[in-house]
Amino acid sequence: MYQEKINVILSECHSVLSLISEESTRCLIEKITTANKIFFVGVGRVMLSLQAIAKRWSHLGMRTHVVGEITEPALEKGDVLIVGSGSGETLFPKAIAQKAKTLGAYVIYIGANVESTIAGLADLIVRFHTNTKFNREDEIKSKQIMTSLFEQSLLLYGDLVSMMIVEEKKIDIKGLWEYHANLE
Amino acid sequence: MYQEKINVILSECHSVLSLISEESTRCLIEKITTANKIFFVGVGRVMLSLQAIAKRWSHLGMRTHVVGEITEPALEKGDVLIVGSGSGETLFPKAIAQKAKTLGAYVIYIGANVESTIAGLADLIVRFHTNTKFNREDEIKSKQIMTSLFEQSLLLYGDLVSMMIVEEKKIDIKGLWEYHANLE
Amino acid sequence: MYQEKINVILSECHSVLSLISEESTRCLIEKITTANKIFFVGVGRVMLSLQAIAKRWSHLGMRTHVVGEITEPALEKGDVLIVGSGSGETLFPKAIAQKAKTLGAYVIYIGANVESTIAGLADLIVRFHTNTKFNREDEIKSKQIMTSLFEQSLLLYGDLVSMMIVEEKKIDIKGLWEYHANLE
Amino acid sequence: MYQEKINVILSECHSVLSLISEESTRCLIEKITTANKIFFVGVGRVMLSLQAIAKRWSHLGMRTHVVGEITEPALEKGDVLIVGSGSGETLFPKAIAQKAKTLGAYVIYIGANVESTIAGLADLIVRFHTNTKFNREDEIKSKQIMTSLFEQSLLLYGDLVSMMIVEEKKIDIKGLWEYHANLE
Repeated sequence: MYQEKINVILSECHSVLSLISEESTRCLIEKITTANKIFFVGVGRVMLSLQAIAKRWSHLGMRTHVVGEITEPALEKGDVLIVGSGSGETLFPKAIAQKAKTLGAYVIYIGANVESTIAGLADLIVRFHTNTKFNREDEIKSKQIMTSLFEQSLLLYGDLVSMMIVEEKKIDIKGLWEYHANLE
Repeated sequence: MYQEKINVILSECHSVLSLISEESTRCLIEKITTANKIFFVGVGRVMLSLQAIAKRWSHLGMRTHVVGEITEPALEKGDVLIVGSGSGETLFPKAIAQKAKTLGAYVIYIGANVESTIAGLADLIVRFHTNTKFNREDEIKSKQIMTSLFEQSLLLYGDLVSMMIVEEKKIDIKGLWEYHANLE
Repeated sequence: MYQEKINVILSECHSVLSLISEESTRCLIEKITTANKIFFVGVGRVMLSLQAIAKRWSHLGMRTHVVGEITEPALEKGDVLIVGSGSGETLFPKAIAQKAKTLGAYVIYIGANVESTIAGLADLIVRFHTNTKFNREDEIKSKQIMTSLFEQSLLLYGDLVSMMIVEEKKIDIKGLWEYHANLE
Repeated sequence: MYQEKINVILSECHSVLSLISEESTRCLIEKITTANKIFFVGVGRVMLSLQAIAKRWSHLGMRTHVVGEITEPALEKGDVLIVGSGSGETLFPKAIAQKAKTLGAYVIYIGANVESTIAGLADLIVRFHTNTKFNREDEIKSKQIMTSLFEQSLLLYGDLVSMMIVEEKKIDIKGLWEYHANLE
C-alpha cells in the first residue's frame, strides 16, 4: 500500500510535468534570467511552493521577492510577477496581478485554468494540466487530496527550471552557497 | 533535455521514498493521529515543506503548529515534535528538539543523518537516504542543487502519509474543506 | 533634539489613545472575551501590530488567529474578525472583511476612516483619530513618517486592552506563561 | 480607568526612551546609514517590532533583512546585525549573533541586560532600562504584562531613529513612497 501510493503520486507528477509546454518554459527562463526583479504571489500551500522557488532562484543570483514579505521593495516597470493559482481566480493573487499590470510588470501565470481572469491578463502562461472544478477532458484526474498535485508539481517545476539554468549557464553548483543565507 | 530532467528528479524522489522504512511510517501515523498537538521545526526550504505538511494535516483534523508562528501555544507533555533536518545538526532545530525533550515531547526526526545529535535524542527516526556531506555508501547521489532532493521528497512524503490516513480512516475527501481556511 | 522627538511621538500617541471611545473599547472587550475564535487581518506594519496583539491576547487564554497563517482554521459563525486599516479601503483586508461577513463573523473595524467601505460593513468601529489623506478637521496631524502613528497607537491600544482584561478578570500575570510558547 | 492606563503605558515608554544614551543612538545612526546591509534578529513580539523597524528603514533607502526571511541574502563582512533581546540570552538571537561575529558583522545589541552574552559580544550596546528578572535598581518596574514595555519602546525607538535620519538627511517624507511596496 505504501509503495503503491508512491507510484500514484509520482506518476501524477510525471504527467503534469511532461505536459508543460517546453516553449513556455523556455520563455519563462529567458524572462527570469534577464529581469531586474522577480516577484511571487499565491496563497496557502501554493505560496509555500513559490517561496521555495524564490529561495532557490535567489541562490542562482536572481533578485526574488515574495509579495507580502516584510522588506518587499517597490515593483518597477519591467519587473516580473509570477502568479501561482490553480483556478486562476484566487482573490488575492488576482488583485495583485491586476495591480502589477498597471505598474508595467511582465506577468507570468502558472496554473490550470487558461480561461481564468489571471490567465487573461498574463503575458505568459505556463499551463499545468492539474485538476480543476471544471473537470475538463484534458485535465489529470488526481487521486490526491484537494490541490496537492498542483502544489507538488509546482515545487518540482521550479527545481527543474533551476537545473536547466544551471546547465545552460554552466553554473558551478558548489559555488552557489555564495548567495545562500549563512546565519543558520 | 526538459523531459530528461523530469526523469532525473522523479527517479531520485522515487528512490528516496521507496527506501523509507514502512514500519517507521506506521509508527509515525500512529503517533500523529493520537497526539494532542503536533509541532514542526526546520529551517529554510525544509521549513516550507514542513509548513505544507502542517497545513494539510490540519485539514485532516490534527492540531498542528509551526515553531515560531505568531500564535504558537505551549508544548505540553505528550505532544509530538517533528524535526526536519537533512544533516541532523542544524542549529535552531537542534536547540528546539533538546528543549522539547525536557518538556516531555515525543520527538520524531526526519532526515538523512542517523548518527546526528537530533537523531540521537529522537524517539522515532524516519530516515531519508538523501545526500549528506558524509557521502555514505547507502546515500542517493543527487544531481540536483544543494539539498533540493530532501525538500522535495519531504513534501511528497507528508502527502503520502495524508493519503494513507485518509484511506485508513475512510475520510471523505470532499468533506475535508470543513477545517480549511475559508477567508481566501 | 532626541528628547524633543520622544515628546512628539508620545504626545501624538497620547492624543490618539485618549480620543478612542471608551464605550467602543468596552464593547470590544465584551466581544473578544466571549468569542470562540478571533481572527486578525491587515497589511504591512499594521499587520505586525495586529500580530503582536494576537500573540498577547492568546496569552490571556483567547483563541487568536492571523489571516494567512499556515495553520489558519475555518472561520465559523459568531467568530470575531478584527480588521486594522487606517484608510478602511486597503484591498486585501477589505476583501477578507466582506468574505467574513458572508460567513457570519462579527467584524470589528479599527482605523481612521469611519466613512470607508470596511467601516460600512463593520459591526463595531473603534475609531483612531490618526491622519488620513482626507485631512479632516478632527484628525491628529502627525509629524511622523507615513502612517507610523497608526501602527504605534494600534500596538499600544492592544496592550491597553490586555491590561484592562487582566484587571477585570483578576488574572494573575505571573501565571500567564502557561499559554506562552515555551520552545524558545 | 481607561485614561489612567494610557498614562501608565505612555509614562513607562517615556522613561525607557529618555534613559537611552544619546551617544549610543548617534553611533547606531552613523552605522546603519553607512552599512551595506542591515540584518535583524529577535523572537516573538520583539521580532515583530524589529520587522516594523526593518520595513520603515527600508523606506529610507537602507537595505534591511530579517533573519529567517525566505529570500535572506548572505551576510558579508561589514554588514550590521541588530539583535533585540530583553534578557540578552535568548537562544536563537544569541546563536545568530555569535555566527555573525565570525562572519565579520558589526553587532548592535538592543536590550536590557548589559551583562548578558549578547551584550558581551556586541560592538555597540543600546541599553533599554526595561524590566528583567534580575530586578536591578536602575530598571523601570513595569506594571504591564511580561515584556510588553520592551516591545513597545523598541518599536517607538526605531521610529524615533527614523525621524532623526529624516531630519539630518533632509529627506522629503512625501518622496518616501518610492521604496515602499506598491502591490497592496
